[in-house]
Amino acid sequence: MATTTDPAITRDELQLATRNHGFPLEILRHDITPIGLHYLLVHYDIPDVHPDAWSLEVRGAVHEPVFFGLEDLRRRPPTRVTTTMECAGNGRALLGERPISQPWLVEAVGTATWTGVRLADVLDEAGVSDDAIEVLFTGADRGVEGGEAQSYARALPIAECRRGDVLLAYEMNGMPLPPQHGFPLRLVVPGWYGMTNVKWLTSIAVLREPYHGYQQDTAYRFRSGPDDPGRPVSRMEPRSLMLPPGVPDFLTRRRFLRSEPVELTGRAWSGQSPIASVEVSTDGGATWARADLGPERSRYEWRRWTMRWNKPEPGEHTLMCRAVDALGHAQPTDESWNYGGYANTMVHRVPVTVTA
Amino acid sequence: MATTTDPAITRDELQLATRNHGFPLEILRHDITPIGLHYLLVHYDIPDVHPDAWSLEVRGAVHEPVFFGLEDLRRRPPTRVTTTMECAGNGRALLGERPISQPWLVEAVGTATWTGVRLADVLDEAGVSDDAIEVLFTGADRGVEGGEAQSYARALPIAECRRGDVLLAYEMNGMPLPPQHGFPLRLVVPGWYGMTNVKWLTSIAVLREPYHGYQQDTAYRFRSGPDDPGRPVSRMEPRSLMLPPGVPDFLTRRRFLRSEPVELTGRAWSGQSPIASVEVSTDGGATWARADLGPERSRYEWRRWTMRWNKPEPGEHTLMCRAVDALGHAQPTDESWNYGGYANTMVHRVPVTVTA
Repeated sequence: MATTTDPAITRDELQLATRNHGFPLEILRHDITPIGLHYLLVHYDIPDVHPDAWSLEVRGAVHEPVFFGLEDLRRRPPTRVTTTMECAGNGRALLGERPISQPWLVEAVGTATWTGVRLADVLDEAGVSDDAIEVLFTGADRGVEGGEAQSYARALPIAECRRGDVLLAYEMNGMPLPPQHGFPLRLVVPGWYGMTNVKWLTSIAVLREPYHGYQQDTAYRFRSGPDDPGRPVSRMEPRSLMLPPGVPDFLTRRRFLRSEPVELTGRAWSGQSPIASVEVSTDGGATWARADLGPERSRYEWRRWTMRWNKPEPGEHTLMCRAVDALGHAQPTDESWNYGGYANTMVHRVPVTVTA
Repeated sequence: MATTTDPAITRDELQLATRNHGFPLEILRHDITPIGLHYLLVHYDIPDVHPDAWSLEVRGAVHEPVFFGLEDLRRRPPTRVTTTMECAGNGRALLGERPISQPWLVEAVGTATWTGVRLADVLDEAGVSDDAIEVLFTGADRGVEGGEAQSYARALPIAECRRGDVLLAYEMNGMPLPPQHGFPLRLVVPGWYGMTNVKWLTSIAVLREPYHGYQQDTAYRFRSGPDDPGRPVSRMEPRSLMLPPGVPDFLTRRRFLRSEPVELTGRAWSGQSPIASVEVSTDGGATWARADLGPERSRYEWRRWTMRWNKPEPGEHTLMCRAVDALGHAQPTDESWNYGGYANTMVHRVPVTVTA
C-alpha cells in the first residue's frame, strides 16, 4: 500500500470516490437512512447474481454440508435488526500521511433495518463441530487486490457468530436487498466495521484453524508500517457526526448561518461500549459542553444528540463534536494514524460563517 | 470558477465527490438503473420536505395562480416515462485544464422510469398566457453559489414544456421519489442534461421575459472563458459507455481478463438526434468496428450495444467506444473543452490487461 503526504487526491483515489457512495451529512436527520443514501463501498464489481441460480453452501467443520436456496431462507420466521454501519476506512482522507485507497472524509456511514435469518440458527442446522473457532464468509465479488486474485472473504470468531442479532439478511429497510448492498444475501454483524458484513454470500465455511486470507491478514489491520503484522480491525470505535447547520456553499461546502439561536444536532455510535456522552465545542475546541442525548433505540443504532447554540456571533467559527463511550474512550482531537488508515475517529469539525 | 492543469484533485473536489454519487459502470448491464445506483448531483443540501406541509404553486403569466397538493397530483391518471439522464458535467475530470467543480470522470448517468403528471396538463389548468416564453422551476434546495445566495432554479422554453413526455414526477422506478431524487415532486425533461430536471419543486412561474438567474446565465453555459456569455447547455450530446470487461484491481480499477473471446457491451444515448451507430476499437483507436445495436426501447432511453472481441491477445490494451447520432455527430477522440467543463464526451477508454 502506498502512502502520501500530498494533500491532493490522485486519479486512483478519485476513481474510487466516484464509484463508492458517501452519506450526505444532512441525512443525519433521518433515524433510518433512506435507500440509496447509506454509504457504499464495493471492493471489486457489484456481481450479477441470479436468484434462481443462487444457493448458499454451509460446509467445513459441520455435521454435514447444507445448501440453502433463497426461498428456503425467506420461509423461516424473520428477524429484524437495526444497526449503524461504518466503513473501517472512514476518516482516511483526513490523515496527514494518507494511504492511497478509498479517500473517505467522514461520510462512510449509514443506519439500516435488516431482515433475515439468524446465522446461529443456520449454523445449528448444519451442526457445528465443537472444535470450530471461526466461520469464513465468501462473497460472489471477485477481483485483484494487493496483486492477488480473490473472491472477497472474511472470517468471524465463532462466538460472534452465535449472537442472536447476527443475521443472514435478505431485506434492507423492508425491501429486497439492492444489488449494491449484497443481493440476494449478506452477513450483518451489528457493532463491527463494514468489511465484516460480507455481501453477495455464496459460501459459509466453519473452520478449525484461523483464516489467513488477504482481507484478514493484510487488509483491515491496525499496522504501524508494511512489516508490522498489526492487530485486526473489528468493532466500530466511538464516533459522532454533526448535521452541518445553515446552508452550504456549492463548491467549498462551507456553511452559512445567521446570528440567531440554532439547534445543533447529530448522531453518535460505538460498536464497543455504549455511548455515554457527546460533547460539543462552538469555539474550535477551547471549551466543550455536554449535548442532550436522545434515547438508545437499540444497542448498535446511532443515538441522536442535540445542543442549542444560543449566541452565534458574526464571524468564522469551527464547530466540533466528540463522543465518549461508557469505558471513557473519547474521540481524539488529533488524527489516529495507522498504515491502512483505519478508524481515524478524530473529532468532527464543521467550519461555519455566521452572518449578521 | 477556478480552473487547474494539475491532475491532482483538490479537497473541495473530493468533498463533492464523496457526497455526490456516481453510477458504477458494471450496472450498465441493467436496462433500468436500480434505486441508489443512478447518478446523483445535489447542488446544496437535500432538503427536508414534509409532504403534508408541501404544495406546488403555479403562477406568473397564467389565467390564475393554482396550488396543488401532492394528493391532488397523485389522483390524476399517471403518465410513465423511461429516460436516461446524465449530468452536464460528466467527463469534467478528464479535461487537461479542469474547472474546479464536481469531478466526474464518466459515471454521471442513469436510466429510470418516472411516474407523474404531464407538465402540459398542469399548465393548461392554470391557463398559460399567449405571450409566455419560458417557465421557471424553483426547488426547495438553498445555498450559496458563485457568491450568490439562491434557491436552485432553472427556466425551460415554453415549447419544451408542452411536450407530452415532460413530467412532474412523484415516483421513480415505481416507488415514491427518494429524498435525494426530489421528494415529493420533480421535473423530468427527457433528452436534456440533468440540471434541467429541477428537484424538490416548490413553484412554477410562467414568464413573459427570459430568466437570468445564476443557473441559467452563469452556470450551465458553453463558455470559452470567464468573459464569454456563451450559449446554454441543453440536450445531451451523443455518448456511449462500455461495461468494463473482466475483473478489476481494487485500487487502480484496471481490468484483467483471459485470452479468450469476450462479448463487449455497453450503452449509448443522445438527447439530440437518435443514436445511429456505436463503434468499438480494441487497439487503442487504430481501427474501429461497428457494434450491434439493441432495440430502441423509447426515444430517450439508452440503447444496448454489443460486439464480440474474438482474439484478446495477452498484453495491455485500451478498449474504446464511440457513439454517432443520426445527424452524423460522433463522440470526439479528444476532449471537448469549455470553461465550465460541460459535455466532455470524448470516447470512453477502458484499459485492460489480457492474461494468457
